[in-house]
Amino acid sequence: MGKKIKTAITPTREEDYAQWYQEVVKAADMAENSPVRGCMVIKPWGFAIWENIQTQMDAMFKETGVKNAYFPLFIPLSYLEKEAEHVEGFAKECAVVTHHKLESDGQGGLQPAGKLTEPLIVRPTSETIIGESMAKWTSSYRDLPILLNQWANVVRWEMRTRMFLRTSEFLWQEGHTAHATQKEAEERTLQMLGIYSKFVEEHLAMPVVLGRKTESERFPGADDTTCIEAMMQDKRALQAGTSHFLGQNFAKSSDIKFQNEEGQEAYAWTTSWGTSTRMIGGMIMTHSDDDGLIVPPRVAPAHVVILPIIKKGGDNSQVMDSTNELKQALNAISYHGRRIEVEIDSRDIGGARGWDWVKKGIPLRIELGPRDIANNSVFMARRDTNKKAGMDRDEFVNTIGDILDSIQETLFTRALTRQKENTFSIDGKDEFYRLFKKSKGFNNGAFVMSHWCGSGDCEAKIKKELSVTIRCIPFDSPKEEGTCISCNEKSEQRVLFAKAY
Amino acid sequence: MGKKIKTAITPTREEDYAQWYQEVVKAADMAENSPVRGCMVIKPWGFAIWENIQTQMDAMFKETGVKNAYFPLFIPLSYLEKEAEHVEGFAKECAVVTHHKLESDGQGGLQPAGKLTEPLIVRPTSETIIGESMAKWTSSYRDLPILLNQWANVVRWEMRTRMFLRTSEFLWQEGHTAHATQKEAEERTLQMLGIYSKFVEEHLAMPVVLGRKTESERFPGADDTTCIEAMMQDKRALQAGTSHFLGQNFAKSSDIKFQNEEGQEAYAWTTSWGTSTRMIGGMIMTHSDDDGLIVPPRVAPAHVVILPIIKKGGDNSQVMDSTNELKQALNAISYHGRRIEVEIDSRDIGGARGWDWVKKGIPLRIELGPRDIANNSVFMARRDTNKKAGMDRDEFVNTIGDILDSIQETLFTRALTRQKENTFSIDGKDEFYRLFKKSKGFNNGAFVMSHWCGSGDCEAKIKKELSVTIRCIPFDSPKEEGTCISCNEKSEQRVLFAKAY
Repeated sequence: MGKKIKTAITPTREEDYAQWYQEVVKAADMAENSPVRGCMVIKPWGFAIWENIQTQMDAMFKETGVKNAYFPLFIPLSYLEKEAEHVEGFAKECAVVTHHKLESDGQGGLQPAGKLTEPLIVRPTSETIIGESMAKWTSSYRDLPILLNQWANVVRWEMRTRMFLRTSEFLWQEGHTAHATQKEAEERTLQMLGIYSKFVEEHLAMPVVLGRKTESERFPGADDTTCIEAMMQDKRALQAGTSHFLGQNFAKSSDIKFQNEEGQEAYAWTTSWGTSTRMIGGMIMTHSDDDGLIVPPRVAPAHVVILPIIKKGGDNSQVMDSTNELKQALNAISYHGRRIEVEIDSRDIGGARGWDWVKKGIPLRIELGPRDIANNSVFMARRDTNKKAGMDRDEFVNTIGDILDSIQETLFTRALTRQKENTFSIDGKDEFYRLFKKSKGFNNGAFVMSHWCGSGDCEAKIKKELSVTIRCIPFDSPKEEGTCISCNEKSEQRVLFAKAY
Repeated sequence: MGKKIKTAITPTREEDYAQWYQEVVKAADMAENSPVRGCMVIKPWGFAIWENIQTQMDAMFKETGVKNAYFPLFIPLSYLEKEAEHVEGFAKECAVVTHHKLESDGQGGLQPAGKLTEPLIVRPTSETIIGESMAKWTSSYRDLPILLNQWANVVRWEMRTRMFLRTSEFLWQEGHTAHATQKEAEERTLQMLGIYSKFVEEHLAMPVVLGRKTESERFPGADDTTCIEAMMQDKRALQAGTSHFLGQNFAKSSDIKFQNEEGQEAYAWTTSWGTSTRMIGGMIMTHSDDDGLIVPPRVAPAHVVILPIIKKGGDNSQVMDSTNELKQALNAISYHGRRIEVEIDSRDIGGARGWDWVKKGIPLRIELGPRDIANNSVFMARRDTNKKAGMDRDEFVNTIGDILDSIQETLFTRALTRQKENTFSIDGKDEFYRLFKKSKGFNNGAFVMSHWCGSGDCEAKIKKELSVTIRCIPFDSPKEEGTCISCNEKSEQRVLFAKAY
């Protein structure tokens, strides 16, 4: 009664959401800051989630005909400069390689030597260097479409960084396609956004809003940027993926030309689309609680941990044998294309053992002792609901896929309910300002659907006064008459406003 | 009769082996040089081979308890300097980041700005940065062993580059482990070398010699470097993988300490081990012929191409339906853990179509026309032997796994025979010099087992005079009395001499 319940993570989400996030990452042993400014070390538990994301998205890309390739890490400065808006967008945050060796500094140390004739930029994205190749490969309409993807590291020199969400180096995939027609390129842009939303909703259990960015939020050099936006538990938005229709801008700057079916020379139409380790940050902030990480089963490094009940100094061979048998029975089961992955933790450290796995967010914990073995039962705890119950062992093995699906479903539904409960249509400017002015911490705004006249000035004013941005113009926002939330001029459509990561 | 047979690749191996290699890579559409000095673009057909290598090796690593992680691309100069031999080994070929943004140069262009207080090195290898993390993670013997691997890009600024074999940026995996005892670290060094030799022999069909490097050829900072060496068709050696026992050198420079079971503070023992895209270069040079690439089935991007016989302007629906049915039947078959991958090429370009696939090295080509369909047969060509024959269609589907295994076997046996036929024991200095002095082009030496006294001077003399190096001291080279091939002093063992890539 009024007594504070102890949580595994301090502070709680309500007490300090930003700090809670850092503590969840740390307690789950996912990642840590490195000695290199703004770069993180992704530890095995965090990296295994990225590996699952990679494998699963990669298969979805390949089903649509996309092939993987690899392009250089370095981009000559002159290539980046080819597209004016593009280079302007990245110039302020580039890692620049200027030398190719080290020599003695005469004081026992080393200094850069071998100055390059042209500085090289560590890729912040690869449109320009891939465009160069596409130009070489494209002579006839028969060479199109070109459908490429690469899994790579990129660098954007960020001043303020936060693990997974914003780091100077991050891992991502970047898709790059070239097409003979505008229509085909536009369709590919939306097709890949569709894959992103399907993956993020079904595998990461994060509901998203699909839409297009306003001009000011577009990718540098794009004609159109589409995106998926997810709501975090503090009600802020996180952009979880973007797909860009680049028009003929990069085709013109990289000279991607071809002879069309009519024998005329034409520029190709290109797209690019990307998602990154940032998705993991979004996943953490969507599902985790005051006891730590919660990982959706589809991308969990392991689905189950078995915690055998060990007697110090006793004969534990029966329990360990039974534990190993259970692991083998579970490993033999296929769950959405991969086997059920099982951890065994037989450390003799008391209650801390179970809590370690709670904090790591493993979907299921199984306790197994002599009595369970005698009864052919297991004692199971679900991470999503924290419900614990004894269960027939065979039933557990036979239904584990359903149990995991139910956890996946619970997480998605919970997140979708949160998003719906925190999405409002607002027509009055005062109400709009009141909502966002008072918002902070764990209740940092909402998804607000309001009318916008289309003016960049209104958008900038709201951003300056409230730190609120137009996350997207949702595809499912109907045309309707209204007045701009900022200037009261005529508007045709509501757009999605929110504070954002 | 004496008439020159036309080959798909010009020049042939005998005419100009180095140029033949470049042409094979180009004709197979595997990779090409990029505008960035020394960096290559890996195209989809080449990259798919790397993806197969990754997936297959990764599973083998994980079976031994290794987990993947990810560490920063950049290493602060001061970290690299911690281990003296290490930094000396890499100082001459480092890409150095000195600035973090670009600003106007006042002439319409951009120039580096935002000078870093400490230069960052683009990782040539990650011992120092991973050592830093291991030091943080290690306080007790219970924290050991740490068994990590990362798949990453690294940069070593090479002056002379050749696609896959030596490029300034390359893709690799680097394993890093830390152990409580010397014995365990030494065992891990050999365990990983064993995985490399198994993978390279069984999956890439390249026979290798296992052994240890001499002091002069050791990894900078290692106590012991073990390696696998393969013979290319021109009789030169290619190092296909290395596994290093680092002793306590990096543990001391990175301060990886722990409390042992006796409660005393001790330094850990570490290992590192790596293989790279260079293996693909080795695979090309081991198996390919004057008609182009030959890819071993285990790592082939696709196992079969179906070439339906199309009639221009005719109704080809029956042939195409039958082609698609055959593809589906083959896709349903599992071959060493992945499905049989099938390409369909229905381009109407005459004989060039078949040759394109010969040059790409796909293991099997199937022609399928109306008569084959009527007879329930297929016309099959094997890339390894170039044998072509009609075959019952059901039999083909039922035995494709065996056919592919037989191709894999043929390639390995052919390479092993070549290696054996070109490995000689030589005791006379004159004979040794004669062999290597006359060798060039396609017959560029041999694997020569000769006695060596152990002196670095003798080793250096041979290297200088013949461009021949000691590739390794083979593990299976027995102790026997003899005299050094160079100085005639007493020797205990033969070592492997060869020219090398």
